[in-house]
Amino acid sequence: MNVGFIGLGHMGAGMAANLLRAGHEVHEVTVYNHTPSRARPLVELGARAAARVRDACRGDAVITMLADDAAVEEVVFGDDGVIGVLREGAIHVSMSTISVALSERLAAMHVKAGQRFVAAPVFGRPDAAAAAKLFIVAAGAPDGVDACGPLFEAMGQRTFRVGEEPKAANLVKLSGNFLIASVIEALGEALALVGKAGVDRRQYLEFLTSTLFTAPVYKTYGGQIVEQKFEPAGFAAPLGAKDIRLALAAAETLRVAMPLASLLRDRFLTLLARGGDALDWSAIGQLAAQDAGLGDGS
Amino acid sequence: MNVGFIGLGHMGAGMAANLLRAGHEVHEVTVYNHTPSRARPLVELGARAAARVRDACRGDAVITMLADDAAVEEVVFGDDGVIGVLREGAIHVSMSTISVALSERLAAMHVKAGQRFVAAPVFGRPDAAAAAKLFIVAAGAPDGVDACGPLFEAMGQRTFRVGEEPKAANLVKLSGNFLIASVIEALGEALALVGKAGVDRRQYLEFLTSTLFTAPVYKTYGGQIVEQKFEPAGFAAPLGAKDIRLALAAAETLRVAMPLASLLRDRFLTLLARGGDALDWSAIGQLAAQDAGLGDGS
Amino acid sequence: MNVGFIGLGHMGAGMAANLLRAGHEVHEVTVYNHTPSRARPLVELGARAAARVRDACRGDAVITMLADDAAVEEVVFGDDGVIGVLREGAIHVSMSTISVALSERLAAMHVKAGQRFVAAPVFGRPDAAAAAKLFIVAAGAPDGVDACGPLFEAMGQRTFRVGEEPKAANLVKLSGNFLIASVIEALGEALALVGKAGVDRRQYLEFLTSTLFTAPVYKTYGGQIVEQKFEPAGFAAPLGAKDIRLALAAAETLRVAMPLASLLRDRFLTLLARGGDALDWSAIGQLAAQDAGLGDGS
Amino acid sequence: MNVGFIGLGHMGAGMAANLLRAGHEVHEVTVYNHTPSRARPLVELGARAAARVRDACRGDAVITMLADDAAVEEVVFGDDGVIGVLREGAIHVSMSTISVALSERLAAMHVKAGQRFVAAPVFGRPDAAAAAKLFIVAAGAPDGVDACGPLFEAMGQRTFRVGEEPKAANLVKLSGNFLIASVIEALGEALALVGKAGVDRRQYLEFLTSTLFTAPVYKTYGGQIVEQKFEPAGFAAPLGAKDIRLALAAAETLRVAMPLASLLRDRFLTLLARGGDALDWSAIGQLAAQDAGLGDGS
Repeated sequence: MNVGFIGLGHMGAGMAANLLRAGHEVHEVTVYNHTPSRARPLVELGARAAARVRDACRGDAVITMLADDAAVEEVVFGDDGVIGVLREGAIHVSMSTISVALSERLAAMHVKAGQRFVAAPVFGRPDAAAAAKLFIVAAGAPDGVDACGPLFEAMGQRTFRVGEEPKAANLVKLSGNFLIASVIEALGEALALVGKAGVDRRQYLEFLTSTLFTAPVYKTYGGQIVEQKFEPAGFAAPLGAKDIRLALAAAETLRVAMPLASLLRDRFLTLLARGGDALDWSAIGQLAAQDAGLGDGS
Repeated sequence: MNVGFIGLGHMGAGMAANLLRAGHEVHEVTVYNHTPSRARPLVELGARAAARVRDACRGDAVITMLADDAAVEEVVFGDDGVIGVLREGAIHVSMSTISVALSERLAAMHVKAGQRFVAAPVFGRPDAAAAAKLFIVAAGAPDGVDACGPLFEAMGQRTFRVGEEPKAANLVKLSGNFLIASVIEALGEALALVGKAGVDRRQYLEFLTSTLFTAPVYKTYGGQIVEQKFEPAGFAAPLGAKDIRLALAAAETLRVAMPLASLLRDRFLTLLARGGDALDWSAIGQLAAQDAGLGDGS
Repeated sequence: MNVGFIGLGHMGAGMAANLLRAGHEVHEVTVYNHTPSRARPLVELGARAAARVRDACRGDAVITMLADDAAVEEVVFGDDGVIGVLREGAIHVSMSTISVALSERLAAMHVKAGQRFVAAPVFGRPDAAAAAKLFIVAAGAPDGVDACGPLFEAMGQRTFRVGEEPKAANLVKLSGNFLIASVIEALGEALALVGKAGVDRRQYLEFLTSTLFTAPVYKTYGGQIVEQKFEPAGFAAPLGAKDIRLALAAAETLRVAMPLASLLRDRFLTLLARGGDALDWSAIGQLAAQDAGLGDGS
Repeated sequence: MNVGFIGLGHMGAGMAANLLRAGHEVHEVTVYNHTPSRARPLVELGARAAARVRDACRGDAVITMLADDAAVEEVVFGDDGVIGVLREGAIHVSMSTISVALSERLAAMHVKAGQRFVAAPVFGRPDAAAAAKLFIVAAGAPDGVDACGPLFEAMGQRTFRVGEEPKAANLVKLSGNFLIASVIEALGEALALVGKAGVDRRQYLEFLTSTLFTAPVYKTYGGQIVEQKFEPAGFAAPLGAKDIRLALAAAETLRVAMPLASLLRDRFLTLLARGGDALDWSAIGQLAAQDAGLGDGS
């Protein structure tokens, strides 16, 4: 299988490297990035560097792993974009976190162009991407998803199929980020409450995460809130804000009121309005403390 | 150590039974319940039955495990109540989920009466109480908490100390229930969203709980929402409503705004207004689906 | 009619003065205040000063106009309190903004003591109290409310009857303050929005209040938000917070979810946590601007 | 002045008729509607009927009064759309309630095409449009707004200028609808509260609207909630939902958290999910009663 990989950011670089390590199932990996220098480490691992998007679209499949809808639109619909150059029957595997609406549009256009489209967004932070420990949520026509099996195995620890409509995978991804952000908000409020009462916040978190809330997200984000350490951002606040916005947009189309998601949206707006662009998205977890007059959020 | 145990409900019965099994450290357990018949199974295990509250207060410590503030107030402040009859230096161990304000008042009155007071609310449902698998959060003067060590070991799997002010333990307990209810709400909204989009809700939950959200609360409550099985209630909606109310009351005293807790409060009111008194508190997790027009919450 | 008046604060002083001006229907007014010096100006207008609460309870009716539940409880239930000394058939007219629960309790106790009880809270700020321009909401047994007619005419511009249960009047009063606080919040958000976009806030408010939102509350509170003038407080933030709390408490008893009231509660907590005790309650209207990063709320 | 008028719906028909009555300042009115039959009554009043959009764009100004962004985009950007055919220096007066983003885009494109652009959305329901009683909020280059003076005088009772950036007028319009929807929500909650307590809802509303809340919006929408009369819709729920969405979109761009607007958004989604498409937007005012278990919202 020959595959192109477009988007070598914090996540994509690790994912592409794992494809290169995949051995006999993946023969050739051609990588493209807007800033070409990010391709170099991968070339050293055996990748071919594509000078243009179109050069990454000549194989059996092309993966896109980009920051947002706009970036995907530019690469897919632009002059010499993916839709225009991918050969008939080849697969576009969209692993970015994008809107349900864009996923729907991509699916329709690829069908029209005689190509296949699989949505396969991922859960996991850059370290999980590098360690091939991602969870992949895949949706699309069964033959397309089947064909991507070797790719998913190379990049993730487990793949979940959620139906034949690609957009379902994107919705699941967005809902997952909503659930994580909910954990951050809940911890932020609880820590503000007990902290203002004088309970030791570290001990409190240790108690929570060793008893009822053993899921890693509680430890990871609770720790960041307790330590007030939001830089460098593993997942930046504007991206978190974007994902909540996309979840709400999907919910609006489906006519599903999500008051907790609305609260999260307002939290992100407040965080960004106060200058939080460079912070990790978990920084919304200090707003409850700030509103409680705890100053720096401690 | 001779100990009294007041309150033999779903939780208390199991806890008292474990005290009886504790062996040489706990010599004698005297049990009292408003409805005396609930004492019988424990008498068969070796307990002495107290005919009045005062008869359960003659030992080194008396444990109260009751439904709410009112029940505790009746037992403690009533004629022949705990405060009136406990001997000097003996310990009242309050394991009920009560308000921070009542805990503060109890602490002050026991000090005045020359008695000791330890707040030690627990996390765990009735099966955990029966299996001695409770998590116990204890606070109070160190000597008092130390003295309760054998009792806690008999009833729980782990004890966490959160300071010398008893009320801190009650606040931690309430904050924990807030965190659990937050999980229920978040799951309810996410399941409404993906469910209305046609994603299989069981598979979705299986995905969540085997990847990012491995904590048991996600599995337990997510399962109840997916199956729409809210009866019989493991923890009834009015009790959940009460705990959120007490968390908000504590937050108000401390001047901490908790918008997610406010949302939960409104959810519980809606659930109860629609006739949910007999349901498990996780039934707030079906309100998002109902608001989305999914009828029975599916 | 001989009447006592207990509570000579910003509101009560003006109201009592108007009773003194009422002429032949009100023969004698005996005033009492915790801080006796506040009675002097009224004595100059013809009032008799009572040294103790009991001395203000010897007439046909006694009016209480106090800050909160606690103040009313102290005056009514205390040693030599209203309940103990009011003669049979005499009327206690409670004009304070108190909880629905306390009103219910007062009604029951006065019935038991053979006295009559009328709840008659008022709408209007101190200047309206001084000008006899209050709106009075009265509830109670018809004969009792009828008997109070001359008093209400002396103090208000219009009286509305809302039933025979006194507590209904208190609920209406609380709901009215909820509606006013809702106006403040809505204006605060709208002003933050257009202000951050560069629209002139004064002109914007002038537009609103001369077209769609002609009710005085929009002009009064909108003006305070635009000018950021929250001192001196006409109605202090802690009192506003209290009234929202009491509205929510009544709603909880009735099982009515009020998400907008919950939002207001959180706003007041944030305002108070940030040091707003001395500000007018309209200062919650600057929080949206602060959350939008507009610093001082402009 | 020769003027075109595009969009003869409930609002536009009355507005165009008033232009025809304006006398010597407005010489000629050419009307266009997607469904041509709606032009007939206006032709009888003296209008010329345009067969195509372009035929309505030959004068000094063309007014658009359409349902939403999509309708405006179709008329303005489509083949033979306004941008393409309006002569240099002529004015496009956009009176529709559209997004701030579209207004900004229109302004830029008209400048580029050498045309002038004035945003002038209106407040008032169809009866006010018919009676020339609209409030008009205008923004744009001063010469353009000045030139529209006779048109605004013919259609409205008062015009407010809010700056030189057209989009400011659109933001003010959206914020105004947010304020009205806030009134509906507040009334809905207050009526649910007092109604469930047994207070007569009609009397209560009469009290409110004759004292503190004299603005007509309270009477209009309060009456609809009390009578549960939401059909026929004066302003349909989907349009209300759209305007709150546009207000939130503008707020998001500006980074302004508006929690009350978020609540309104959720209310509209719930209303629409439950089948409220044909109802007046004031029907969100019955949701609090429904959540309180009052069944049909009474």
